[in-house]
Amino acid sequence: MVKVGIVGGTGYTGVELLRLLAGHGGARIEAVTSRKEAGMKVAEMFPSLRGRVDVAFSTPEEANLKGCDVVFFATPHGVAMAQARELLDAGVKVIDLAADFRLKDPAEFQKWYAMEHSCTDLLDEAVYGLAEVNRDAIRAARLIGMAGCYPTSVQLGLLPLLENGQQLIETDTLIADCKSGVSGAGRKAEVGTLFAEAGDNFKAYGVKGHRHSPEINQGLSAIHGAPVTLTFVPHLTPMIRGIHSTIYARIRPEGRGTDFQKLFEDRFAGEAFVDVMPAGSCPETRSVRGSNIARIAVHRPGNGDLLVILVVEDNLVKGASGQAVQVMNLMFGLPETQGLDVVPLLP
Amino acid sequence: MVKVGIVGGTGYTGVELLRLLAGHGGARIEAVTSRKEAGMKVAEMFPSLRGRVDVAFSTPEEANLKGCDVVFFATPHGVAMAQARELLDAGVKVIDLAADFRLKDPAEFQKWYAMEHSCTDLLDEAVYGLAEVNRDAIRAARLIGMAGCYPTSVQLGLLPLLENGQQLIETDTLIADCKSGVSGAGRKAEVGTLFAEAGDNFKAYGVKGHRHSPEINQGLSAIHGAPVTLTFVPHLTPMIRGIHSTIYARIRPEGRGTDFQKLFEDRFAGEAFVDVMPAGSCPETRSVRGSNIARIAVHRPGNGDLLVILVVEDNLVKGASGQAVQVMNLMFGLPETQGLDVVPLLP
Amino acid sequence: MVKVGIVGGTGYTGVELLRLLAGHGGARIEAVTSRKEAGMKVAEMFPSLRGRVDVAFSTPEEANLKGCDVVFFATPHGVAMAQARELLDAGVKVIDLAADFRLKDPAEFQKWYAMEHSCTDLLDEAVYGLAEVNRDAIRAARLIGMAGCYPTSVQLGLLPLLENGQQLIETDTLIADCKSGVSGAGRKAEVGTLFAEAGDNFKAYGVKGHRHSPEINQGLSAIHGAPVTLTFVPHLTPMIRGIHSTIYARIRPEGRGTDFQKLFEDRFAGEAFVDVMPAGSCPETRSVRGSNIARIAVHRPGNGDLLVILVVEDNLVKGASGQAVQVMNLMFGLPETQGLDVVPLLP
Amino acid sequence: MVKVGIVGGTGYTGVELLRLLAGHGGARIEAVTSRKEAGMKVAEMFPSLRGRVDVAFSTPEEANLKGCDVVFFATPHGVAMAQARELLDAGVKVIDLAADFRLKDPAEFQKWYAMEHSCTDLLDEAVYGLAEVNRDAIRAARLIGMAGCYPTSVQLGLLPLLENGQQLIETDTLIADCKSGVSGAGRKAEVGTLFAEAGDNFKAYGVKGHRHSPEINQGLSAIHGAPVTLTFVPHLTPMIRGIHSTIYARIRPEGRGTDFQKLFEDRFAGEAFVDVMPAGSCPETRSVRGSNIARIAVHRPGNGDLLVILVVEDNLVKGASGQAVQVMNLMFGLPETQGLDVVPLLP
Repeated sequence: MVKVGIVGGTGYTGVELLRLLAGHGGARIEAVTSRKEAGMKVAEMFPSLRGRVDVAFSTPEEANLKGCDVVFFATPHGVAMAQARELLDAGVKVIDLAADFRLKDPAEFQKWYAMEHSCTDLLDEAVYGLAEVNRDAIRAARLIGMAGCYPTSVQLGLLPLLENGQQLIETDTLIADCKSGVSGAGRKAEVGTLFAEAGDNFKAYGVKGHRHSPEINQGLSAIHGAPVTLTFVPHLTPMIRGIHSTIYARIRPEGRGTDFQKLFEDRFAGEAFVDVMPAGSCPETRSVRGSNIARIAVHRPGNGDLLVILVVEDNLVKGASGQAVQVMNLMFGLPETQGLDVVPLLP
Repeated sequence: MVKVGIVGGTGYTGVELLRLLAGHGGARIEAVTSRKEAGMKVAEMFPSLRGRVDVAFSTPEEANLKGCDVVFFATPHGVAMAQARELLDAGVKVIDLAADFRLKDPAEFQKWYAMEHSCTDLLDEAVYGLAEVNRDAIRAARLIGMAGCYPTSVQLGLLPLLENGQQLIETDTLIADCKSGVSGAGRKAEVGTLFAEAGDNFKAYGVKGHRHSPEINQGLSAIHGAPVTLTFVPHLTPMIRGIHSTIYARIRPEGRGTDFQKLFEDRFAGEAFVDVMPAGSCPETRSVRGSNIARIAVHRPGNGDLLVILVVEDNLVKGASGQAVQVMNLMFGLPETQGLDVVPLLP
Repeated sequence: MVKVGIVGGTGYTGVELLRLLAGHGGARIEAVTSRKEAGMKVAEMFPSLRGRVDVAFSTPEEANLKGCDVVFFATPHGVAMAQARELLDAGVKVIDLAADFRLKDPAEFQKWYAMEHSCTDLLDEAVYGLAEVNRDAIRAARLIGMAGCYPTSVQLGLLPLLENGQQLIETDTLIADCKSGVSGAGRKAEVGTLFAEAGDNFKAYGVKGHRHSPEINQGLSAIHGAPVTLTFVPHLTPMIRGIHSTIYARIRPEGRGTDFQKLFEDRFAGEAFVDVMPAGSCPETRSVRGSNIARIAVHRPGNGDLLVILVVEDNLVKGASGQAVQVMNLMFGLPETQGLDVVPLLP
Repeated sequence: MVKVGIVGGTGYTGVELLRLLAGHGGARIEAVTSRKEAGMKVAEMFPSLRGRVDVAFSTPEEANLKGCDVVFFATPHGVAMAQARELLDAGVKVIDLAADFRLKDPAEFQKWYAMEHSCTDLLDEAVYGLAEVNRDAIRAARLIGMAGCYPTSVQLGLLPLLENGQQLIETDTLIADCKSGVSGAGRKAEVGTLFAEAGDNFKAYGVKGHRHSPEINQGLSAIHGAPVTLTFVPHLTPMIRGIHSTIYARIRPEGRGTDFQKLFEDRFAGEAFVDVMPAGSCPETRSVRGSNIARIAVHRPGNGDLLVILVVEDNLVKGASGQAVQVMNLMFGLPETQGLDVVPLLP
């Protein structure tokens, strides 16, 4: 049994880790820290876990994190980078669900997250936690910076088109028009995500620039082996879970003869958590609700030169905690799908 | 034109007052105070008001509230009682949408609102702002404590049965099972009313005791002229606006021969804002969305001894700001319906 | 492996059976019938099942239902009673999720379901599928009429108070004010349950009389061993899944000294799927979303003579398909909880 | 008073016309037809109209439509074209909210609406009902084909960029990623728009081709005076009302020096129903809920060569019935804004 610690168990990615690990079978939750709620049973805050998770929140001091095999950081940005070094030195693997170890360039981190990076020496070692791209590196890693929710969907949607320096699509006119459920904003008390504000309402945000932009561009460029730039426009949708990314890519003359449906199907044939839908499909977010699966459809309207790629994922699972468990499985030699066979909840 | 000041314009009852007064025709908004947002145009915070409300938030000091004819308090509990005396002395009428002037007994206020009442000398003078019960007193009043959202619906639903000491129903076994949209909790940053918490979810709350209980019992007892006790169980519903109260009343032997449909229709025949639905109806909250109307249906299942009374209102209009405008109209000799002829928004 | 047939797989109870059986481990889906969709893969209609359920819809004629060990009817009322006899004669067990075998009195069935009962000779044999009440009878049964969604929640909420002829509460003034998510109305094309009709809206319905009333009264009377009558008022709530029943019971003088919290805890101590919440709790529907658990809280406001019992369940799981799998487990000697260990999905 | 007839009053555009005309002041509803509901009071079907609209549904035969000044068709496609000739000949003006008179090419109509156009001789005369583009022609018209909901938002968003043959943006790479509330699908009993299907869910649809594509391209080309092609991808959003269009336009070298904010502000300065938001804004759909206003923001991320234009409208008001009343006002010489001064309902 993998001994697991969770730092920050009161947010949505924390409770989602608990949901998935409760039914995992190969991992045991040793500690869930929350300075504010220390002493309270986790299941008292989240009654959905009654009878399934018996642990109580503990202070970071009480929690024997160094005795764990792996520690997940389900915390605000900036927490993991302060503790990662000590844990790694103690032989504990670290999986950060926040942004501390996503961006390779500390200047970019500082620009977008408005704080100095306090642990730059680990940035090179940190592996970007997108299993479909970095599976081997993840298996060997001690420290993972998990992919963000939007970036996961966008990178999966463009992976078959950009990998290996292929010249199928233009790489400087890409657009990702993304729509997220409100849980993506986290379990923080804020006016903008109140039910009476975000309900029955739709809006774009972050059009001028969003933190996930540099992450997406870094990831796509790494996949492509050359610079890729994408315009990213996120929108807030009145639903709880789910991301729907609508990606627009212009086909290059070299790409016109490609069978894109086949390209996608071939690329993801061996991937347990990426489902290429039949040609002509429009995947719904609810078709992955609660599960670690991303579903992708690729369209070429009017057989023209624009590809429209539709990607759905559950932002809290494939976009966060489920993918983190997938990564943990890889790091500890467990079956990649262990604990992640939840059938999506529909309706 | 009635010169209007609004203290606390950043919450839902504040913006709702602005929506209604923008189209009123007989009132002019002189000042909207918010210490925190002073200087910002109201329509910048609430773009729905662009082109309709040109005023900016001001500090209480800048705002010439004493130059107004009436000041609405759309504030947290405790604010109005600190300022009412000074305004009244300056000849300004005061309409408080919070609870400061609802309960006649300061001990009850302190018990339920966890603060001492700082203005007990005005409690006797204050008129309870439920026009259908206190119309004449409101016309003559300087100071109004507006009825709460739940209490409005429950009192209207029981008014024909209890008025004038009638002995139609038992007065010690009354139950009001009430359901409110999330806007009833206000525009405060709180975890419990986040979209991802309150959405797709239903729960009771305050079963042990809710602030509106003493208000309801005080109001019903005043209507009846004798003590009335009611068990009040509120529930949170995943919708933005609307209250649905399902009220259960046991018919006394003396009441068995009553034509309750006729009783309700007769009682509310002259009321512009209470609509008795045809026999057998189940009113929907959306049928009053955005309007000052309460719709009521009275059922007697199986012709037995239990009455089931259904009441719907928009908690922000008839349950708060619309009713406050209705009261203002009465206080200033305007037509009671002025500015309140909005047709409900359906769907 | 139990060989399972499902008649009527295109509705919500059908797809929910498929979700649960896909992860069951002790049952194999042999056939899912739908005359209209015959030939289509189940996962084409419900992409949430892609990769998990490989079967296609078949016509009733093609489906070898007589070769199954058990057949679930997830059909409109009236279908199961036409086919049950033939299946039972072939040695197949039958679990009907509709109402055909719920009511013992065929005249009551005809009154409420507007059709003659065509299989009255099986009504005596049929066991009412509420495991917490009829566990032993279910184990021995060939034919089950599953409890309805509302009746399940109401009966569980009153079970500890009424069992064994106890005289703790009045049995002629009971009230159940119930609120259901919209999936309770089924996956039928109807105007009233469109998103734009049922969204952001709340209403009562069936106040004059609802089909679940006779079922509830029959069930409670059987539990109590004497006639029990309850006023049942259902409401439609803008959420997808979930039932919240608020039950009001007047305490008899004999019951005043009872420790109701303990009574409930003791009664359900051994029940895997009934969770008595700590005193003072208000369970949320989302705390059981997707799971077979009902959570119950019992309140006695002001220590008076009225009990307020709060019950939440997922109407499609404990209120329908999950409970049907629970019953199947009992009928085939499997662990009662097999396939039903889904952790609720929150948020 | 303009005498108004409405053909098809049971759908959302019909009831929305009734809501707006109830408070119009310059129009009187003479007849609302519905063969199916003839004899029923309109307010019985839509209790939101109780006390405001007293008319009953009538059959087309009973309704004296030829005695009206104007008849609105709030019907499925194909109805208006069968009746328009006769009404026009009787001197009645016709405003069709469906698609019968939108497309100038009957072959296109037949292709997208799967029916032959039975009234092609009126296609030339019919004026496209988008007041901001065709105001003068509308004033003089007898027959209007109202703009569709999506096309209204897309054309308004691109109007300042394309008018008068300007060469500011590329006209062959335009993309409109549009999101609509569920009421856009109408008040028809269909599985796909049930609350339990469309709620808490997001999906694209019609990616292969949508009826509004030829309308958008026809409209933009007319505005531009040269062919314009746009890729249109609609999405279904779990909200009741509202359209949010995110439009992507590549700036030509000739356009790089343009002050786009000013261009938009200048173009719409005199338009009562188009509100250009301050630079940097992201308009919300709720900011126009219930009102005839479209709000637009124009962004140029990173000061690059891609314009991102955000447009919000209420699909049932500016996208349908409100705009139709606006057009009626123009046709009858009334103030363009009469009856359309509803303040948006927020929250």
